[in-house]
Amino acid sequence: MTDNDAVLTANLEFYHAFAARDLVAMDAVWARRVPVGCIHPGWPALSDRDAVMESWQSILSNPDAPRIACYDERVLLYGDAALVLCEEELEGGTLVASNLFVREEGNWRIAHHQAGQLASRRPEARRREPPRPSRLN
Amino acid sequence: MTDNDAVLTANLEFYHAFAARDLVAMDAVWARRVPVGCIHPGWPALSDRDAVMESWQSILSNPDAPRIACYDERVLLYGDAALVLCEEELEGGTLVASNLFVREEGNWRIAHHQAGQLASRRPEARRREPPRPSRLN
Repeated sequence: MTDNDAVLTANLEFYHAFAARDLVAMDAVWARRVPVGCIHPGWPALSDRDAVMESWQSILSNPDAPRIACYDERVLLYGDAALVLCEEELEGGTLVASNLFVREEGNWRIAHHQAGQLASRRPEARRREPPRPSRLN
Repeated sequence: MTDNDAVLTANLEFYHAFAARDLVAMDAVWARRVPVGCIHPGWPALSDRDAVMESWQSILSNPDAPRIACYDERVLLYGDAALVLCEEELEGGTLVASNLFVREEGNWRIAHHQAGQLASRRPEARRREPPRPSRLN
């Protein structure tokens, strides 16, 4: 399996754990030996593994947790690190996410996740009319 | 200089280029030899260097571009890659950002940036009352 495919597989395992509300599977996909971080939409950054897993426990145990599907994945490879950029379809809208993976004991494990709201699903319209400057950076 | 300090310096150069609206300096801090990505708030992911620099040209040339300052940086090291998690203070509010750096020709250069809105500046209150599930992931 190429690194590209292995990283995509790890990314899918992350979203499968999320969709299945499976905290054990979610714990398994997160890195153990390197520092991890996580930025849920609207939240401040978490940068401690216990805090990250506690946040997932809170999210996955919530009966109102949204259904989620991942699509339009793009893999950027950096040797023993890799980034997946993708969109997340939820009942409440679309998010765009960055997922950083690291090779750990021969397995690709997620080391960081940030997701944020996508303002529009019409990139053509967005190009003609960029978001207001106050929302840019 | 330690890797931690060198990555923090590169992160500050990125924000200095942003604050100074200096497109040449902004171009200089972005990686040249590895794939790059960028997710501005509300935008879809950009994963082509030309598209990323075009987005910065649009933002930095806008006379209404917001003032920006970076603070509360945390560095996560992964060998020849590193992640900086930080908050960004703008006139219109506070953002939280992930900046991925890679060591390229001995220099740390930014390979990916995602910024998103921070819902609140009161993490203590947020812990007691988590965001609505529809906003989580």
